Amino acid sequence: MTAQSCRVRGVFMSVSEMGAAPTVVLDAGGDSTIPIYVGLWEAISINNALINEMLPRPITHDLVVDLFRRFDITLDALHIDSLEEGVFYAKLHLSQGSRTEIIDCRPSDGIAIALRYEAPIMIEDTVVASAAVKKDDLPKMVDLKEYL
Amino acid sequence: MTAQSCRVRGVFMSVSEMGAAPTVVLDAGGDSTIPIYVGLWEAISINNALINEMLPRPITHDLVVDLFRRFDITLDALHIDSLEEGVFYAKLHLSQGSRTEIIDCRPSDGIAIALRYEAPIMIEDTVVASAAVKKDDLPKMVDLKEYL
Repeated sequence: MTAQSCRVRGVFMSVSEMGAAPTVVLDAGGDSTIPIYVGLWEAISINNALINEMLPRPITHDLVVDLFRRFDITLDALHIDSLEEGVFYAKLHLSQGSRTEIIDCRPSDGIAIALRYEAPIMIEDTVVASAAVKKDDLPKMVDLKEYL
Repeated sequence: MTAQSCRVRGVFMSVSEMGAAPTVVLDAGGDSTIPIYVGLWEAISINNALINEMLPRPITHDLVVDLFRRFDITLDALHIDSLEEGVFYAKLHLSQGSRTEIIDCRPSDGIAIALRYEAPIMIEDTVVASAAVKKDDLPKMVDLKEYL
Protein backbone atom coordinates (compact mmCIF):
# COMPACT_ATOMS: atom_id res chain seq x y z
CA MET A 1 0.00 0.00 0.00
CA THR A 2 1.25 3.46 -0.84
CA ALA A 3 -0.15 6.73 0.34
CA GLN A 4 0.22 10.41 -0.37
CA SER A 5 0.11 13.32 2.01
CA CYS A 6 -2.75 15.72 1.52
CA ARG A 7 -3.79 19.16 2.63
CA VAL A 8 -7.16 20.14 4.01
CA ARG A 9 -8.61 22.61 1.52
CA GLY A 10 -11.45 23.54 3.84
CA VAL A 11 -14.75 22.59 5.32
CA PHE A 12 -17.91 23.63 3.56
CA MET A 13 -21.59 22.92 3.18
CA SER A 14 -22.08 21.03 -0.05
CA VAL A 15 -25.36 21.93 -1.58
CA SER A 16 -27.47 19.66 -3.76
CA GLU A 17 -31.14 18.96 -4.41
CA MET A 18 -31.05 16.89 -1.22
CA GLY A 19 -30.08 19.89 0.91
CA ALA A 20 -26.81 21.00 2.45
CA ALA A 21 -24.33 18.66 4.10
CA PRO A 22 -21.12 19.54 5.98
CA THR A 23 -18.15 18.33 3.95
CA VAL A 24 -14.41 18.42 4.47
CA VAL A 25 -12.47 18.72 1.22
CA LEU A 26 -8.93 17.34 0.93
CA ASP A 27 -6.54 18.27 -1.87
CA ALA A 28 -5.16 15.08 -3.35
CA GLY A 29 -2.64 16.42 -5.86
CA GLY A 30 -3.21 18.21 -9.18
CA ASP A 31 -6.83 19.18 -9.49
CA SER A 32 -8.03 16.14 -7.55
CA THR A 33 -9.97 16.58 -4.34
CA ILE A 34 -11.49 14.15 -1.88
CA PRO A 35 -14.78 15.39 -0.42
CA ILE A 36 -15.85 13.62 2.78
CA TYR A 37 -19.18 14.20 4.51
CA VAL A 38 -18.74 14.88 8.21
CA GLY A 39 -21.03 15.72 11.13
CA LEU A 40 -21.78 19.39 11.76
CA TRP A 41 -20.09 19.33 15.16
CA GLU A 42 -16.95 17.81 13.59
CA ALA A 43 -17.13 20.33 10.73
CA ILE A 44 -17.13 23.20 13.22
CA SER A 45 -14.19 21.68 15.07
CA ILE A 46 -12.21 21.22 11.83
CA ASN A 47 -13.03 24.77 10.81
CA ASN A 48 -11.87 26.11 14.18
CA ALA A 49 -8.59 24.27 13.75
CA LEU A 50 -8.14 25.67 10.22
CA ILE A 51 -8.68 29.25 11.32
CA ASN A 52 -6.74 28.69 14.55
CA GLU A 53 -9.67 29.65 16.69
CA MET A 54 -9.62 28.22 20.18
CA LEU A 55 -12.88 28.21 22.06
CA PRO A 56 -12.79 29.48 25.66
CA ARG A 57 -13.25 25.91 26.96
CA PRO A 58 -11.37 22.98 25.38
CA ILE A 59 -13.58 20.95 23.07
CA THR A 60 -13.11 17.20 22.78
CA HIS A 61 -10.47 17.40 20.02
CA ASP A 62 -8.46 19.92 22.05
CA LEU A 63 -8.65 17.49 24.96
CA VAL A 64 -7.23 14.67 22.81
CA VAL A 65 -4.29 16.82 21.71
CA ASP A 66 -3.71 17.96 25.31
CA LEU A 67 -3.63 14.30 26.30
CA PHE A 68 -0.98 13.57 23.64
CA ARG A 69 1.20 16.44 24.83
CA ARG A 70 0.90 15.67 28.52
CA PHE A 71 1.83 12.02 28.07
CA ASP A 72 4.49 12.67 25.39
CA ILE A 73 2.48 10.71 22.86
CA THR A 74 3.50 11.62 19.30
CA LEU A 75 0.90 11.67 16.55
CA ASP A 76 3.10 10.48 13.68
CA ALA A 77 0.32 10.74 11.10
CA LEU A 78 -3.34 10.27 10.34
CA HIS A 79 -3.91 7.64 7.65
CA ILE A 80 -7.16 7.63 5.72
CA ASP A 81 -6.80 4.11 4.54
CA SER A 82 -9.97 2.68 3.18
CA LEU A 83 -13.38 3.41 1.80
CA GLU A 84 -16.02 0.73 2.04
CA GLU A 85 -19.64 1.13 1.02
CA GLY A 86 -19.40 4.89 1.27
CA VAL A 87 -17.70 4.89 4.70
CA PHE A 88 -14.17 6.25 5.02
CA TYR A 89 -11.92 4.59 7.60
CA ALA A 90 -8.92 6.22 9.22
CA LYS A 91 -6.26 5.47 11.78
CA LEU A 92 -4.15 7.54 14.14
CA HIS A 93 -0.53 6.36 14.10
CA LEU A 94 0.80 7.11 17.56
CA SER A 95 4.00 6.51 19.44
CA GLN A 96 5.29 7.02 22.94
CA GLY A 97 8.96 6.21 23.32
CA SER A 98 9.50 2.85 21.65
CA ARG A 99 5.82 1.92 21.79
CA THR A 100 3.60 2.40 18.78
CA GLU A 101 -0.17 2.12 18.59
CA ILE A 102 -2.54 2.41 15.66
CA ILE A 103 -6.02 3.51 16.66
CA ASP A 104 -9.16 3.37 14.53
CA CYS A 105 -11.01 6.68 14.21
CA ARG A 106 -13.48 8.46 12.00
CA PRO A 107 -11.72 10.66 9.42
CA SER A 108 -13.55 13.70 10.82
CA ASP A 109 -12.09 13.15 14.31
CA GLY A 110 -8.72 12.30 12.80
CA ILE A 111 -8.60 15.45 10.69
CA ALA A 112 -9.73 17.68 13.59
CA ILE A 113 -6.98 16.17 15.74
CA ALA A 114 -4.22 16.09 13.08
CA LEU A 115 -4.79 19.76 12.21
CA ARG A 116 -4.49 20.81 15.85
CA TYR A 117 -1.37 18.72 16.31
CA GLU A 118 0.02 19.70 12.87
CA ALA A 119 0.52 16.05 11.98
CA PRO A 120 0.65 14.81 8.39
CA ILE A 121 -2.58 13.57 6.85
CA MET A 122 -1.93 10.60 4.56
CA ILE A 123 -4.42 9.12 2.18
CA GLU A 124 -4.04 5.72 0.55
CA ASP A 125 -3.74 5.69 -3.22
CA THR A 126 -6.60 3.19 -3.43
CA VAL A 127 -8.83 5.65 -1.59
CA VAL A 128 -7.76 8.48 -3.89
CA ALA A 129 -8.47 6.24 -6.87
CA SER A 130 -12.04 5.56 -5.76
CA ALA A 131 -12.96 8.86 -4.13
CA ALA A 132 -11.18 11.60 -6.08
CA VAL A 133 -13.34 14.27 -7.66
CA LYS A 134 -11.93 16.89 -10.03
CA LYS A 135 -12.17 20.34 -8.51
CA ASP A 136 -14.54 21.47 -11.25
CA ASP A 137 -16.85 18.54 -10.64
CA LEU A 138 -17.40 19.18 -6.94
CA PRO A 139 -20.96 19.98 -5.93
CA LYS A 140 -21.65 23.59 -5.04
CA MET A 141 -19.78 24.44 -1.81
CA VAL A 142 -20.91 27.22 0.49
CA ASP A 143 -18.99 28.64 3.44
CA LEU A 144 -19.81 26.85 6.68
CA LYS A 145 -20.34 30.14 8.49
CA GLU A 146 -23.31 30.97 6.29
CA TYR A 147 -25.07 28.05 7.95
CA LEU A 148 -24.09 28.79 11.56
CA MET B 1 -11.18 20.59 49.54
CA THR B 2 -13.44 17.60 49.96
CA ALA B 3 -15.51 15.95 47.31
CA GLN B 4 -18.20 13.32 47.05
CA SER B 5 -18.74 10.73 44.39
CA CYS B 6 -21.89 11.07 42.38
CA ARG B 7 -23.97 9.07 39.98
CA VAL B 8 -25.29 10.22 36.63
CA ARG B 9 -29.08 10.14 36.95
CA GLY B 10 -29.55 10.73 33.25
CA VAL B 11 -29.51 13.16 30.42
CA PHE B 12 -32.68 15.02 29.52
CA MET B 13 -34.06 18.07 27.80
CA SER B 14 -34.99 20.60 30.47
CA VAL B 15 -37.97 22.56 29.38
CA SER B 16 -38.72 26.14 30.36
CA GLU B 17 -40.28 29.25 28.83
CA MET B 18 -36.95 29.73 27.04
CA GLY B 19 -37.22 26.44 25.20
CA ALA B 20 -35.57 23.05 25.73
CA ALA B 21 -31.91 22.59 26.64
CA PRO B 22 -29.93 19.34 26.92
CA THR B 23 -29.03 18.78 30.56
CA VAL B 24 -27.12 16.09 32.41
CA VAL B 25 -28.40 15.49 35.92
CA LEU B 26 -26.09 14.18 38.65
CA ASP B 27 -27.31 12.72 41.93
CA ALA B 28 -25.50 14.45 44.76
CA GLY B 29 -26.75 12.54 47.80
CA GLY B 30 -30.17 12.57 49.44
CA ASP B 31 -32.64 14.37 47.23
CA SER B 32 -29.99 16.75 45.88
CA THR B 33 -29.22 16.86 42.19
CA ILE B 34 -26.79 18.88 40.10
CA PRO B 35 -28.22 19.78 36.69
CA ILE B 36 -25.59 20.85 34.13
CA TYR B 37 -26.41 22.20 30.67
CA VAL B 38 -24.45 20.41 27.95
CA GLY B 39 -24.26 20.54 24.17
CA LEU B 40 -26.65 18.30 22.23
CA TRP B 41 -23.80 16.29 20.74
CA GLU B 42 -22.34 15.70 24.21
CA ALA B 43 -25.81 14.84 25.54
CA ILE B 44 -26.22 12.15 22.89
CA SER B 45 -22.79 10.77 23.70
CA ILE B 46 -23.54 10.65 27.46
CA ASN B 47 -26.88 9.01 26.73
CA ASN B 48 -25.23 6.38 24.54
CA ALA B 49 -22.79 5.61 27.36
CA LEU B 50 -25.64 5.30 29.88
CA ILE B 51 -27.60 2.86 27.73
CA ASN B 52 -24.43 1.08 26.65
CA GLU B 53 -25.07 1.75 23.01
CA MET B 54 -21.99 1.76 20.84
CA LEU B 55 -22.31 3.40 17.46
CA PRO B 56 -20.92 1.48 14.47
CA ARG B 57 -17.99 3.93 14.21
CA PRO B 58 -16.17 5.16 17.32
CA ILE B 59 -17.22 8.66 18.28
CA THR B 60 -14.70 11.05 19.82
CA HIS B 61 -15.30 9.93 23.42
CA ASP B 62 -14.85 6.28 22.42
CA LEU B 63 -11.58 7.30 20.79
CA VAL B 64 -10.36 8.91 24.03
CA VAL B 65 -11.14 5.77 26.03
CA ASP B 66 -9.46 3.62 23.37
CA LEU B 67 -6.41 5.84 23.69
CA PHE B 68 -6.34 5.32 27.48
CA ARG B 69 -6.55 1.55 27.12
CA ARG B 70 -3.95 1.28 24.38
CA PHE B 71 -1.38 3.32 26.28
CA ASP B 72 -2.25 1.85 29.71
CA ILE B 73 -3.39 5.24 30.94
CA THR B 74 -5.68 4.92 33.96
CA LEU B 75 -8.52 7.36 34.44
CA ASP B 76 -8.48 7.52 38.24
CA ALA B 77 -11.43 9.90 38.43
CA LEU B 78 -13.22 12.84 36.93
CA HIS B 79 -13.37 15.78 39.34
CA ILE B 80 -15.98 18.48 38.81
CA ASP B 81 -14.19 21.01 40.90
CA SER B 82 -15.50 24.48 40.39
CA LEU B 83 -18.34 26.61 39.17
CA GLU B 84 -17.59 30.15 38.14
CA GLU B 85 -20.09 32.55 36.62
CA GLY B 86 -22.30 29.69 35.53
CA VAL B 87 -19.49 27.64 33.98
CA PHE B 88 -18.62 24.27 35.51
CA TYR B 89 -14.95 23.24 35.38
CA ALA B 90 -13.72 19.66 35.53
CA LYS B 91 -10.49 17.72 35.43
CA LEU B 92 -9.50 14.25 34.35
CA HIS B 93 -7.13 12.69 36.89
CA LEU B 94 -4.94 10.33 34.89
CA SER B 95 -1.99 8.10 35.58
CA GLN B 96 0.37 5.94 33.59
CA GLY B 97 2.79 3.98 35.75
CA SER B 98 4.24 6.43 38.24
CA ARG B 99 3.27 9.46 36.17
CA THR B 100 0.15 11.43 36.96
CA GLU B 101 -1.45 14.16 34.90
CA ILE B 102 -4.48 16.33 35.59
CA ILE B 103 -6.15 17.59 32.44
CA ASP B 104 -8.75 20.34 32.18
CA CYS B 105 -11.96 19.36 30.38
CA ARG B 106 -15.56 20.36 30.08
CA PRO B 107 -17.79 18.38 32.47
CA SER B 108 -19.77 17.07 29.48
CA ASP B 109 -16.66 15.53 27.90
CA GLY B 110 -15.49 14.32 31.29
CA ILE B 111 -18.80 12.62 32.07
CA ALA B 112 -19.04 11.02 28.61
CA ILE B 113 -15.51 9.65 29.07
CA ALA B 114 -15.83 8.62 32.74
CA LEU B 115 -19.04 6.67 32.04
CA ARG B 116 -17.41 4.74 29.21
CA TYR B 117 -14.36 4.01 31.32
CA GLU B 118 -16.47 3.35 34.46
CA ALA B 119 -14.33 5.81 36.41
CA PRO B 120 -15.63 7.57 39.53
CA ILE B 121 -17.18 11.01 39.08
CA MET B 122 -16.31 13.26 42.03
CA ILE B 123 -17.88 16.60 42.72
CA GLU B 124 -16.44 19.16 45.11
CA ASP B 125 -18.56 20.02 48.12
CA THR B 126 -18.31 23.71 47.24
CA VAL B 127 -19.83 22.96 43.82
CA VAL B 128 -22.60 20.92 45.42
CA ALA B 129 -23.24 23.77 47.84
CA SER B 130 -23.70 26.30 45.06
CA ALA B 131 -25.32 24.15 42.36
CA ALA B 132 -27.50 21.59 44.13
CA VAL B 133 -31.19 21.61 43.29
CA LYS B 134 -33.72 19.50 45.18
CA LYS B 135 -35.21 16.83 42.96
CA ASP B 136 -38.68 18.36 43.28
CA ASP B 137 -37.38 21.78 42.23
CA LEU B 138 -35.81 20.68 38.95
CA PRO B 139 -37.33 22.20 35.83
CA LYS B 140 -39.49 19.89 33.73
CA MET B 141 -37.28 17.18 32.22
CA VAL B 142 -38.23 15.37 29.03
CA ASP B 143 -36.55 12.29 27.59
CA LEU B 144 -33.78 13.18 25.17
CA LYS B 145 -35.09 10.75 22.58
CA GLU B 146 -38.29 12.76 22.21
CA TYR B 147 -36.15 15.50 20.70
CA LEU B 148 -34.03 13.34 18.39
